[in-house]
Amino acid sequence: MKSLGIGLIGTGYMGKCHALAWNAVAPTFGDIARPRLVHLGEVNESVARKKAEELGFARASGDWRAVIADPEVDVVSITTPNEFHAEMAIAALEAGKHIWCEKPMATSEADARAMLEAARRSGKVAALGYNYIQNPAIGHLKALLEEGAIGAINHVRLEMDEDFMADGAVPFGWKSDRRSGYGALDDFAVHPLSLLTTLLGPVARVVTDMAKPFAERPLAEGGSRAVETHDIANVLLRLASGVSGILLVNRSAWGRKGRIALQIFGSEGSILYDQERMNELQLYQARGPVAEQGFRTILTGTAHPPYDRFIPAPGHGLGFNDLKVIEARELIRRIGGEPAHLVEFETGIGIERTVHAMARAFETGGWVDVGS
Amino acid sequence: MKSLGIGLIGTGYMGKCHALAWNAVAPTFGDIARPRLVHLGEVNESVARKKAEELGFARASGDWRAVIADPEVDVVSITTPNEFHAEMAIAALEAGKHIWCEKPMATSEADARAMLEAARRSGKVAALGYNYIQNPAIGHLKALLEEGAIGAINHVRLEMDEDFMADGAVPFGWKSDRRSGYGALDDFAVHPLSLLTTLLGPVARVVTDMAKPFAERPLAEGGSRAVETHDIANVLLRLASGVSGILLVNRSAWGRKGRIALQIFGSEGSILYDQERMNELQLYQARGPVAEQGFRTILTGTAHPPYDRFIPAPGHGLGFNDLKVIEARELIRRIGGEPAHLVEFETGIGIERTVHAMARAFETGGWVDVGS
Amino acid sequence: MKSLGIGLIGTGYMGKCHALAWNAVAPTFGDIARPRLVHLGEVNESVARKKAEELGFARASGDWRAVIADPEVDVVSITTPNEFHAEMAIAALEAGKHIWCEKPMATSEADARAMLEAARRSGKVAALGYNYIQNPAIGHLKALLEEGAIGAINHVRLEMDEDFMADGAVPFGWKSDRRSGYGALDDFAVHPLSLLTTLLGPVARVVTDMAKPFAERPLAEGGSRAVETHDIANVLLRLASGVSGILLVNRSAWGRKGRIALQIFGSEGSILYDQERMNELQLYQARGPVAEQGFRTILTGTAHPPYDRFIPAPGHGLGFNDLKVIEARELIRRIGGEPAHLVEFETGIGIERTVHAMARAFETGGWVDVGS
Amino acid sequence: MKSLGIGLIGTGYMGKCHALAWNAVAPTFGDIARPRLVHLGEVNESVARKKAEELGFARASGDWRAVIADPEVDVVSITTPNEFHAEMAIAALEAGKHIWCEKPMATSEADARAMLEAARRSGKVAALGYNYIQNPAIGHLKALLEEGAIGAINHVRLEMDEDFMADGAVPFGWKSDRRSGYGALDDFAVHPLSLLTTLLGPVARVVTDMAKPFAERPLAEGGSRAVETHDIANVLLRLASGVSGILLVNRSAWGRKGRIALQIFGSEGSILYDQERMNELQLYQARGPVAEQGFRTILTGTAHPPYDRFIPAPGHGLGFNDLKVIEARELIRRIGGEPAHLVEFETGIGIERTVHAMARAFETGGWVDVGS
Repeated sequence: MKSLGIGLIGTGYMGKCHALAWNAVAPTFGDIARPRLVHLGEVNESVARKKAEELGFARASGDWRAVIADPEVDVVSITTPNEFHAEMAIAALEAGKHIWCEKPMATSEADARAMLEAARRSGKVAALGYNYIQNPAIGHLKALLEEGAIGAINHVRLEMDEDFMADGAVPFGWKSDRRSGYGALDDFAVHPLSLLTTLLGPVARVVTDMAKPFAERPLAEGGSRAVETHDIANVLLRLASGVSGILLVNRSAWGRKGRIALQIFGSEGSILYDQERMNELQLYQARGPVAEQGFRTILTGTAHPPYDRFIPAPGHGLGFNDLKVIEARELIRRIGGEPAHLVEFETGIGIERTVHAMARAFETGGWVDVGS
Repeated sequence: MKSLGIGLIGTGYMGKCHALAWNAVAPTFGDIARPRLVHLGEVNESVARKKAEELGFARASGDWRAVIADPEVDVVSITTPNEFHAEMAIAALEAGKHIWCEKPMATSEADARAMLEAARRSGKVAALGYNYIQNPAIGHLKALLEEGAIGAINHVRLEMDEDFMADGAVPFGWKSDRRSGYGALDDFAVHPLSLLTTLLGPVARVVTDMAKPFAERPLAEGGSRAVETHDIANVLLRLASGVSGILLVNRSAWGRKGRIALQIFGSEGSILYDQERMNELQLYQARGPVAEQGFRTILTGTAHPPYDRFIPAPGHGLGFNDLKVIEARELIRRIGGEPAHLVEFETGIGIERTVHAMARAFETGGWVDVGS
Repeated sequence: MKSLGIGLIGTGYMGKCHALAWNAVAPTFGDIARPRLVHLGEVNESVARKKAEELGFARASGDWRAVIADPEVDVVSITTPNEFHAEMAIAALEAGKHIWCEKPMATSEADARAMLEAARRSGKVAALGYNYIQNPAIGHLKALLEEGAIGAINHVRLEMDEDFMADGAVPFGWKSDRRSGYGALDDFAVHPLSLLTTLLGPVARVVTDMAKPFAERPLAEGGSRAVETHDIANVLLRLASGVSGILLVNRSAWGRKGRIALQIFGSEGSILYDQERMNELQLYQARGPVAEQGFRTILTGTAHPPYDRFIPAPGHGLGFNDLKVIEARELIRRIGGEPAHLVEFETGIGIERTVHAMARAFETGGWVDVGS
Repeated sequence: MKSLGIGLIGTGYMGKCHALAWNAVAPTFGDIARPRLVHLGEVNESVARKKAEELGFARASGDWRAVIADPEVDVVSITTPNEFHAEMAIAALEAGKHIWCEKPMATSEADARAMLEAARRSGKVAALGYNYIQNPAIGHLKALLEEGAIGAINHVRLEMDEDFMADGAVPFGWKSDRRSGYGALDDFAVHPLSLLTTLLGPVARVVTDMAKPFAERPLAEGGSRAVETHDIANVLLRLASGVSGILLVNRSAWGRKGRIALQIFGSEGSILYDQERMNELQLYQARGPVAEQGFRTILTGTAHPPYDRFIPAPGHGLGFNDLKVIEARELIRRIGGEPAHLVEFETGIGIERTVHAMARAFETGGWVDVGS
């Protein structure tokens, strides 16, 4: 396949992360044409120019529409705040570009639906930035499930915890304002749900509790204001397959920095994973002598593709940003018509629908169907 | 205090465990009169005699009523199957004996209520065998909570998992029969609830899901039979204090052998504990330089009483049976009128009421108040 | 076999530990006659009487010779300071008693030799208190080695670390005085060597470095005194089998409480063990798909005898004192003429000879043969 | 500082790793001019052209001398087999280029000495590729040592283990041939020594044992051949500061994939690190209540620069290749005259001298001075 021309909108952390991936994908994989970094868009034009130089883009604009209009651009990375995703994604798709949009898709189900329809009309690839599923450890986990390594799955537990809201002295800000959404549910739930959906299929029914560790938070100008979002959410769930499980998210969990802990139980074994030790997988198989059974700590290595494209020796460790390079590679393959492992809009909208169902279940106090 | 005369009813594992504790408590603690092992009761009289010799009891009977009637007996250990607890406990209390009864109290709320009333009438000590709370690690955890080491508690997670029902080839037996109760909820939930209640107070409201990993199990005589109990239960809960939490129990969780995992989050830190590593505690405190914050693995030692009564050097490890020795010591102190850390009938009945509320919540599909 | 009559000399921690074991061994194992606790000796007669009551002994004496002379005593537990072992052990053997003597055997090779000769002359069982080898985890490790689970052994690493001398403010005392011996080598090395010898056979050659973390220590009366012993010892070694290895001991290792870390490498796998997590074993086998290989954490359980004699469910955890109960049981079996797993004088003297060779190697700065 | 022109010689894994770093360093750090990837050299000219396209280099040559002669090249990355380092490095330095040469410097001490002299004559920066020291976790470890967080250091242990030679069926090849050097000592020892030297200063004296897990290895053509190198080396050492320690390397350690385990003990605490969990650090400080002391697991995060340049949230994990990006940044800073953390030839030659001293100590069987 010929070299793809890349446009990038947004130069915050995720913009940088996309740019690093576009720079690294050809050297890392060695079997694809090096993408050309064509056009960078950023609202402030002088920042745009500086960033273009730094990130390796040939051109820069203060108007994102120029990126989308650029005939040399084949793919547009959208890494702006969530509220702009819909307008930009739809415009890019209508301009005939493939898109790689950071999650969540949009701030409302209606917008997400419109994006999905634009993608369908365009026939272009519309992928979401769910990088956790790209971890070779997760890829191997998926392969283990598919080959029946732990038998028929009967239970799953997912926890995602960080501590950036754990300090009661964190002042009232956007994240505590109801206009930002539900709270931890928006911030976090899509990530474990991307894993859950990819590994075990969609969620069918949920019942939810949400909690506020701090009733109010201090205001910068003195005094305090009642917190309107929930830093904690706890969900009982049933998958479409009937499997029972739980999803717990907490953005005020002191000591947890990037935890996404996964426990999957099957009729012949169990698998554990924790994103804080992203190069490890724990596998228990009820095989062989009982006296020798135990959880096996598998260190990711060259036996877990595409780890070997990064490092030729096992156990040396990939990093968080490497997952984006793998995602870029999957996207390039997908555009080239090859099989790829990605969350596209068709699947992504289901993840977001699940989050909204969880929020409704909290309001009603009972089970809610996710619907489809 | 003078030496107590001990009666023991039941010689299964828990009977042996009580006997070991009665044999070890004086040598271990060195500051109490060595209990006299007076009378052992066991339905088969020749077994009773053999066991009395082995366990160090002076007398043996084939009728438990003889134990209760023995004037030299001051305390009766009741370690028979749950269905016999009520009759024996009430008889012993009416005979003026203190009792140490294995949990759960009874197989119905009515029986438990009758036991509580008998205890109140007798004025004797009526303690339940909730040994996990006796771990010096848990004692220190409680002290940490009380001194505010992690601030105001805002979230708690409890999981109890084993794998004795994880194999679908385990034949249909008593544990799959609805007459045995709900399933994992009966087998397990009282243990984490004893920790929860002791550490954070009672549960107020619950919503529950329960699941069957295997719809049917093979019959010994060929064919199979539909499973009537649930090996998995997942509960969202609110404590009386308002704190949100979850309780998950699973007796078909491959690889888990004696897991009781506890996560407690507060406004200034977090504490983790896992019964499979019962000599360790994890403490995170949001103090000092951020660059040096982390979960601290505290190995139980001489700084965590009464560890030092077992071993004079830290980090050498207590075992599961040692917890019963500590419990025996607490019971002796309680009988002697000293402050003690025990689950007595007054508290125990609340634990069992909570389990029943969890089961009702599963039936109704919504939140249920535990009541009091 | 008939019930054995037990004598105990010494009532410090190890005396208590022996007493606990003698009290627990029959209830725990259920297949041996309950030993009779006959006679306790302790230099202070009133302490002796109090302790006898507490520990369950029928008689007490202020003179240890009375214990040895007691015709009802079959076995004598010797738990006094090391300097008294030789005299007591020889006297007991000459009086026709079996002995269970705490390690090390003696404070000189000459004394140890005399003890061994007394044992040979007597024809009685002369066992040493090397309890770490009694751990079911170690028993299973030994079985794994014997069945070739990790192929031919080619390398071993042993570390034993605690921190009771880690604080420079610990005043100059007996342990820093050259009359106490070499330092960490005496305190610690016999323990890992008991494991090494039991699992992999004797040590043939060594080269040693020793170090003093603190050149001097404060005196209680003010001022300070030069430290004469070494809190750290590092040894390169070759086993008689030719296997290369290292032994490191450090009694000033902050944070280490009861660490005895063992790494054994073979041609087909590896095994790891750490006494601080004494209910776990790590096994790596180079078998099956590379993508699923990893260290397996085996929790000790009912598949690892005699764990099941303590607890009928796996993963619940034995404690340090339980190892002494197993040792008592092995001793009883040995006395009864059954196969038993014990370090007797014949083997024990080799362990001590190895320690002395290590010390000589430090003086000479080169390799020293252990001899035999 | 102006943008540097980059030349790269060699396109194996380390060449790719350098190229990834040169591509990523400006986007990652955002405060340096993006290096221009000018000229790639590789013995096969058509491979050179393909790789130049892939890795982002403007020009390609089949002759490495063209890279060095290129006037637009300011810095030359040398990533060819070790035997070519000396010739290339000296030529590049004489051509007035800065160099970034993979370790080890050379295959003989004489060559390394010549390289050092060329560097001195040129006045250019001559850095070695010791990436492990660039880990933010190691940077923080160093800061902790410097601020006295664990007091005066008194003991250190270093182990480096992998398992690529653990299988006896690995055929006789270059690594078993004496012409490749000593064995594990060459392959591994420089890595832990780079950490040791950086953190605690140079090694003064050593005594060494080396071992062959397999006496012979199969030949591809049938039969077998005696192994001439040692897959295991064990070293007792003393630092110039007097601190005692050990260094153990094993390339046949089943289950170890990228282990570099470091234990540092001081008068007030201890620090542990393992490269297989490169985003974690364990810190024990003998401070505060004894009952709360324990090893603290610190997850690398934004408090550990330059982690924050990669990811704005803590605990998300850097990877092995990210260390090379940090190294590139240090090199650019060093060339620009700013303080930088690098192993340059002056220090690097000491590391290699230490390895040779270790080998001599094995031959002599006694202590050998490293010299200077």
